[in-house]
Amino acid sequence: MMFWDHDDDKLREECGVFGVFRHPEASILTALGLHALQHRGQEACGIACFDEATGLFHNERHTGLVGDNFVGKKIFDRLKGNSAIGHNRYPTQGTPAIRNIQPIFADLDCGGIAIAHNGNLTNSRSLRRTLVDRGAIFQSTMDTEVILHLISRSDKARITERFVDAISQIEGGYALVALTEHMLIGARDPVGLRPLVLGDRDGTAILASETCALDILGAKFVREIEPGEIVIITDQGVESLTPFQRRSTAPCLFEFVYFARPDSIIQGRSVYNVRRRMGMKLAEETMAEADVVVPVPDSGVPAALGFSIASGLPFEMGIIRNHYVGRTFIEPTQGERQNSISKKHSPNKWVLEGKRVVLVDDSIVRGNTSKKIVQMVRDAGAKEVHFRSASPPIKFPDFYGIDMPNERDLMAANYSHEEMTQLLGVDSLGFLSVDGLYWAVGDIDRDQNSPQYADHCFTGQYPTRLIDRRNDETGRDAQLSFLDD
Amino acid sequence: MMFWDHDDDKLREECGVFGVFRHPEASILTALGLHALQHRGQEACGIACFDEATGLFHNERHTGLVGDNFVGKKIFDRLKGNSAIGHNRYPTQGTPAIRNIQPIFADLDCGGIAIAHNGNLTNSRSLRRTLVDRGAIFQSTMDTEVILHLISRSDKARITERFVDAISQIEGGYALVALTEHMLIGARDPVGLRPLVLGDRDGTAILASETCALDILGAKFVREIEPGEIVIITDQGVESLTPFQRRSTAPCLFEFVYFARPDSIIQGRSVYNVRRRMGMKLAEETMAEADVVVPVPDSGVPAALGFSIASGLPFEMGIIRNHYVGRTFIEPTQGERQNSISKKHSPNKWVLEGKRVVLVDDSIVRGNTSKKIVQMVRDAGAKEVHFRSASPPIKFPDFYGIDMPNERDLMAANYSHEEMTQLLGVDSLGFLSVDGLYWAVGDIDRDQNSPQYADHCFTGQYPTRLIDRRNDETGRDAQLSFLDD
Amino acid sequence: MMFWDHDDDKLREECGVFGVFRHPEASILTALGLHALQHRGQEACGIACFDEATGLFHNERHTGLVGDNFVGKKIFDRLKGNSAIGHNRYPTQGTPAIRNIQPIFADLDCGGIAIAHNGNLTNSRSLRRTLVDRGAIFQSTMDTEVILHLISRSDKARITERFVDAISQIEGGYALVALTEHMLIGARDPVGLRPLVLGDRDGTAILASETCALDILGAKFVREIEPGEIVIITDQGVESLTPFQRRSTAPCLFEFVYFARPDSIIQGRSVYNVRRRMGMKLAEETMAEADVVVPVPDSGVPAALGFSIASGLPFEMGIIRNHYVGRTFIEPTQGERQNSISKKHSPNKWVLEGKRVVLVDDSIVRGNTSKKIVQMVRDAGAKEVHFRSASPPIKFPDFYGIDMPNERDLMAANYSHEEMTQLLGVDSLGFLSVDGLYWAVGDIDRDQNSPQYADHCFTGQYPTRLIDRRNDETGRDAQLSFLDD
Amino acid sequence: MMFWDHDDDKLREECGVFGVFRHPEASILTALGLHALQHRGQEACGIACFDEATGLFHNERHTGLVGDNFVGKKIFDRLKGNSAIGHNRYPTQGTPAIRNIQPIFADLDCGGIAIAHNGNLTNSRSLRRTLVDRGAIFQSTMDTEVILHLISRSDKARITERFVDAISQIEGGYALVALTEHMLIGARDPVGLRPLVLGDRDGTAILASETCALDILGAKFVREIEPGEIVIITDQGVESLTPFQRRSTAPCLFEFVYFARPDSIIQGRSVYNVRRRMGMKLAEETMAEADVVVPVPDSGVPAALGFSIASGLPFEMGIIRNHYVGRTFIEPTQGERQNSISKKHSPNKWVLEGKRVVLVDDSIVRGNTSKKIVQMVRDAGAKEVHFRSASPPIKFPDFYGIDMPNERDLMAANYSHEEMTQLLGVDSLGFLSVDGLYWAVGDIDRDQNSPQYADHCFTGQYPTRLIDRRNDETGRDAQLSFLDD
Repeated sequence: MMFWDHDDDKLREECGVFGVFRHPEASILTALGLHALQHRGQEACGIACFDEATGLFHNERHTGLVGDNFVGKKIFDRLKGNSAIGHNRYPTQGTPAIRNIQPIFADLDCGGIAIAHNGNLTNSRSLRRTLVDRGAIFQSTMDTEVILHLISRSDKARITERFVDAISQIEGGYALVALTEHMLIGARDPVGLRPLVLGDRDGTAILASETCALDILGAKFVREIEPGEIVIITDQGVESLTPFQRRSTAPCLFEFVYFARPDSIIQGRSVYNVRRRMGMKLAEETMAEADVVVPVPDSGVPAALGFSIASGLPFEMGIIRNHYVGRTFIEPTQGERQNSISKKHSPNKWVLEGKRVVLVDDSIVRGNTSKKIVQMVRDAGAKEVHFRSASPPIKFPDFYGIDMPNERDLMAANYSHEEMTQLLGVDSLGFLSVDGLYWAVGDIDRDQNSPQYADHCFTGQYPTRLIDRRNDETGRDAQLSFLDD
Repeated sequence: MMFWDHDDDKLREECGVFGVFRHPEASILTALGLHALQHRGQEACGIACFDEATGLFHNERHTGLVGDNFVGKKIFDRLKGNSAIGHNRYPTQGTPAIRNIQPIFADLDCGGIAIAHNGNLTNSRSLRRTLVDRGAIFQSTMDTEVILHLISRSDKARITERFVDAISQIEGGYALVALTEHMLIGARDPVGLRPLVLGDRDGTAILASETCALDILGAKFVREIEPGEIVIITDQGVESLTPFQRRSTAPCLFEFVYFARPDSIIQGRSVYNVRRRMGMKLAEETMAEADVVVPVPDSGVPAALGFSIASGLPFEMGIIRNHYVGRTFIEPTQGERQNSISKKHSPNKWVLEGKRVVLVDDSIVRGNTSKKIVQMVRDAGAKEVHFRSASPPIKFPDFYGIDMPNERDLMAANYSHEEMTQLLGVDSLGFLSVDGLYWAVGDIDRDQNSPQYADHCFTGQYPTRLIDRRNDETGRDAQLSFLDD
Repeated sequence: MMFWDHDDDKLREECGVFGVFRHPEASILTALGLHALQHRGQEACGIACFDEATGLFHNERHTGLVGDNFVGKKIFDRLKGNSAIGHNRYPTQGTPAIRNIQPIFADLDCGGIAIAHNGNLTNSRSLRRTLVDRGAIFQSTMDTEVILHLISRSDKARITERFVDAISQIEGGYALVALTEHMLIGARDPVGLRPLVLGDRDGTAILASETCALDILGAKFVREIEPGEIVIITDQGVESLTPFQRRSTAPCLFEFVYFARPDSIIQGRSVYNVRRRMGMKLAEETMAEADVVVPVPDSGVPAALGFSIASGLPFEMGIIRNHYVGRTFIEPTQGERQNSISKKHSPNKWVLEGKRVVLVDDSIVRGNTSKKIVQMVRDAGAKEVHFRSASPPIKFPDFYGIDMPNERDLMAANYSHEEMTQLLGVDSLGFLSVDGLYWAVGDIDRDQNSPQYADHCFTGQYPTRLIDRRNDETGRDAQLSFLDD
Repeated sequence: MMFWDHDDDKLREECGVFGVFRHPEASILTALGLHALQHRGQEACGIACFDEATGLFHNERHTGLVGDNFVGKKIFDRLKGNSAIGHNRYPTQGTPAIRNIQPIFADLDCGGIAIAHNGNLTNSRSLRRTLVDRGAIFQSTMDTEVILHLISRSDKARITERFVDAISQIEGGYALVALTEHMLIGARDPVGLRPLVLGDRDGTAILASETCALDILGAKFVREIEPGEIVIITDQGVESLTPFQRRSTAPCLFEFVYFARPDSIIQGRSVYNVRRRMGMKLAEETMAEADVVVPVPDSGVPAALGFSIASGLPFEMGIIRNHYVGRTFIEPTQGERQNSISKKHSPNKWVLEGKRVVLVDDSIVRGNTSKKIVQMVRDAGAKEVHFRSASPPIKFPDFYGIDMPNERDLMAANYSHEEMTQLLGVDSLGFLSVDGLYWAVGDIDRDQNSPQYADHCFTGQYPTRLIDRRNDETGRDAQLSFLDD
């Protein structure tokens, strides 16, 4: 009987992007940057670069980790050039087709262009249908290819005009990096759902999803790309375009809650400290009579530390994380106990036995893993288990690039607080409030009319139109007829 | 020091194609058909099929042989469907990108289409340039993709009209098979340069490059697709379209000389017997005083048998072919003799020693392998070596799908008969005459104004315009800026 | 230029072992047990089992992790049987030969036997030489094979007698599991250098290096195998032999310091708590004026928590560990700063900037990684760095199964406290005292004449004779003449 | 449904061996020699060499063909040294364990030794049992390892004495090459069942199974190693030992019938010509009224040529061999005809249709493939099929290294001439007589008391004792308890 970890119960980001302009070792810098962004996507990775000497683009895309693919002299001998962009892709089930790995490339009449994209377009299927009607041939199922076709078919003359033309037609969440023969382009959606930052390494311009990719290279953080901004990086420097009408922005709260690396800085705030503050506020809002605060490692550690600080309860590593996780194991069918086996976590009995335990995690998605961990902690002898989620209940789906279970699989969308308490098998259950989350992020209350952050997963209030989804509701979309190698 | 067989000195066909309509094991039949056509291309192979039950196309493409890839239950579980097309690709240097393996597929507004193509278009580059100017994005460097874009952008309504629209714009040599949801399409260029036959297996229609692919399935040969004909195979049967203006046809002689399998039937003639007749005529035209006739195996065997019959000289296997040929070996640098080592052929001393040998091969291309074999035969003790080519001197390049060395590498294009005799190190050298070749193919003389066959490699008389080539001569073509994974 | 992590500066255990007797899914249990012991060896793993139904032994050995190799139904269909043993091997440089992976097997006249071994023999080379002189043929370079030959050549009749005969000839550190047709055997060296525990899963006997391998299976911990004890597990139950003369025992302190998993129990003591106590004592012995206590993750975490508790200084995760570590990266050569790049750790600036930091790690071996981390912490803005090692200075080599650098590479063996402080670039440096370590392990002082633990790495006092080493000093040993596939 | 070629119905040789002494590119020469001997074994191959500079042996063993494994600079950089031996292994079912691939190596007290072996010992199991009783540990199931243990345990001092000591204990058929630090050794069994020749390449001594391995290197054939002879090749030259009592010799006839390459010379006779003479004699003995002689390619070609010469009937290639044979295909289950599909052979209708065909093959083993080919020829329209085997009926098993089906699967051992005629579906069936075979090999009649050749497969008269077999008949042998990775 197969078991374990098909239910590994975390939200997943759709990707990490990186770009570097005019550096003799552009591809090596990109590999290092992607490595620092590995937490944003582990399924596949790719690097495209442009070699001024030969006028050729090179593109290598592989399934698996950056550190398993972009290592050794050989691959970088092939990835010649002094500008490059790169991409990490999030894991899904099954081996991905190479054609669905980014960056993707096209030879336009005005020259080559490579694009990498983090996010999800909310009108890509309707755009795609229009393009196919007009004779476009798609090679992948990625919405990034829609952008490429829009650029290719734009009747503008200059590549920057075409790029603006293309992205003014798309909606949703995106952070884009694009590479042409003469420029590196970065763009962020008008709402600012997906993050993108600008860095500088001794005069070389860098774009990256998070600041931790600058840190690994010893590059300075310059600023975030603004929502709706397009930056054009050329030999003349960094030019900023803001072609879109101003509108209220709403960066995604999940970057703070789970996606970003704790050592990254978002909107001037330390992700680590924001999570610590979530834990502090959580203690304030949902205090429990207990003996010890235990994080679900690694994502729950900062919030558990914050909870410990605010509550005065001791912080202990009551759950050990196993770093060697391979593929799915086979479970023995014999024997009386079978429930508490986990490939990834093991209980630290000395901490748990006989104790009243506050268990802190960043969030609850489906709830299955949380349930298993609770059972494991009880099996290790805990007297009471008080589960605390450092984010509010997740009740609504995302359409901007978070890989999320179906609404009917979200625990908080389907069960009452009491039901969840019972299903998880805990003595008490607590969630951070939405206002508490806003406080943790930066001392502000939520603006009910125009929320400062994208918090739709907690509130159901979406920051953009959802065109594809509306179509889904009115009639069945033309299905793709292609399953490929 | 590396050596051996980089100079394996044969012309190469660009491919074999196969298609089957409405058979519950369409993909298995296609794998077997491709296996029988393996001699037409060993670099890569692919099968695309359509599954009526799910409305999905499936496509699997691999480098290497059919028998190494399309075996086992698993792959055919994936290749569900009752119609399929397949393709074998000829070997070139380097590992090919999967994106350059056929069949290729596109999701059009009128439904999916998969295409496989044997041949070469003479105006693909100019068509491609126009398409890119109009915003098309190419994913491969194959000219087959040009056809797909022409179909995709045709403003006709029905798929058959679009198909006709597309191929009326292309020039060159081609045998095409295409698969849509409701039909299997076959097409042959107006000149008939590349072959395509129609077969029937208990009511199931089959298309294949050669009859040997019908034989392996126990299918009956129905007829050749006519030059310029398009056949539309649907549930209603086989419909024939001949949209092009009649013109004189000229099937490629090299199918008889080298490409086709000896057990295939072309234009009602046994390839084996045509080759045997080449040898008979060759003996008549270029008789030599000798003791024994020895073929260069395996391609020279039928002609050598014919030579033996017509000359009365005994036929003996004086050269043994090694069936286990792997990759390139490393040659030892030490020792006094190093020239006569061959991975593929070895001399049978008992036959050769002290003899006057007539060595018969199908053709001479670059001449390097011939030279090596002559030396090998001499080293084995032959007293005299009389080399006989069962085809005329190859002096001109092909542009219709034969993978041929550059003109400056064709031995007969650069050297006189005497020079060749000396370069090859033979006592005498003989070629079949062009008229002799026509006799062997079918008792007819060559029509000097409108040759019945494409014989441009021997005569320089090309059966079509050569648009890309003309452009090459007037100005350098825009180079592709893309080198990919 | 290659860089990174060749200097990953930790001691390495030689292995983990596991055995299970009479369970219908013996191999699956063994795979899970080995997975829990993965921290003891990541280079290779193997499982040998005996199938009563067919009377056959099966053995599968692979390089890489358990979770990458022993997964899926297929491998367990091959590994039929109801008794099994398994082994994890520590990583060294280069791909290991399969013949050097355990378990190893021999067909003796009295039946088959498979053996797996954690540890290192101090007289294996002299035994090996004697055996080769007497005609034994060795297939591996493992000292485990010596044991197999000693069993094979013993003139005793019964397999248990032969086993005792064999291990009474070996010296050094070992925990052995062996499987024959009718029994599972476990043995621990007389000094108790390497650990071995006995567990029970619903009546099924289990042997394992650590208790965490029992926990993952829901098995109960029964007791430790005593130093010098041999347990014979048969259908009749567990029989205990103690064939050796009593002597003072000295389990290895490094199990507490670094090797064992924190959730394991050794000699009745929680490894996690022992490490926490090391940190507490360390604070007491080496307190520093500082703002924050930061662990080097993950090994330094429990000691840092202890330091924080005892010192009252706040505990913060000032260094983030990257879980995605692949092979060696290429470092960019351009740019002014290159020193603080690390694949595995990144600084959490918000914690470190402007702070006086106490950095806590489990030990200092070569010192290179420590030096890099210190520099990284300084680059992130720390005002002062006070390095604290939760174990005493490592000054002497180990010969009982710890993979250790050469004596001349051990920092503390070559430099004074002041020199180390300067080399590491820290404001102060502190080590736990040997007595402090004894306190942490269990409230006792060190017995100077007969130390309760093997502490030779800190004190130079070895608990056994070192025969091979003595031979090394008197004359060069016969070198093996074999390098294999 | 799986089909095809599991019944590929040829006898298989157990191996090819090769050795070279003191040549700077010993391993490269060995790879080339093994390539020329590839027909003797395609399952696996290995090369062991000795590097005087470092005093180290190197050994690389791989499954698959020489040309797929021993190519490229890298492997030869590892295989340093100026003496080497090599081995090709015949194919069996299943992937072979690396430990069962030769050469095998042992570190003896007197230095290292590598051995490669073609043949089969008839007393290896009883020797093995004795050795295991005396404490020897076997790592493989190859009888070659028995020889290694006998050498290792010999109480003689010098390696040559030990070698003689060892092989004086073994019985059966063998051609051995062995490599030590100072010598290359060759040995052939007293009966001369397996072949071994000595060559010379510009002063470098070479040992090989067949002369074709000398030809590929441009080496001169010096002489055959005599039955029962041991040659010791050192820097002092070639020394010959004949330690065994003279007895009548009997080289194996199957080398002439099928195993050897046609361009090899055995006992001064061209294998090609011997086969041609078999065909001539076959025509004389079993003439048929027919129109054409058709060989089963490739093995039947020389005999068919001989048949054509002696009978006056025309020789034509009526069956085409497909060179691209991969793994087992899946057969379509639909359709009325399914029998005549073959992956390896296809009928050449033009030759066969309406003809009375004499089909010539080298031998009939099980008969299944012959039956399929006959059906294929009939399906192609042959009016009559007269099957002729160029060797006598195979009625008895071999025990000296030929991989042969069980006696109950040998067609001629189980059926009368009439039954076989009917089972094969032929109009007439003919076999060469035993005396005819002797005539073909060299103009001599068979000596009934002491046959000049090993012809036991035809006559049941075995040239040696069969110890293991006798034991098999008296009691069941102790089975090996080991199935390994």
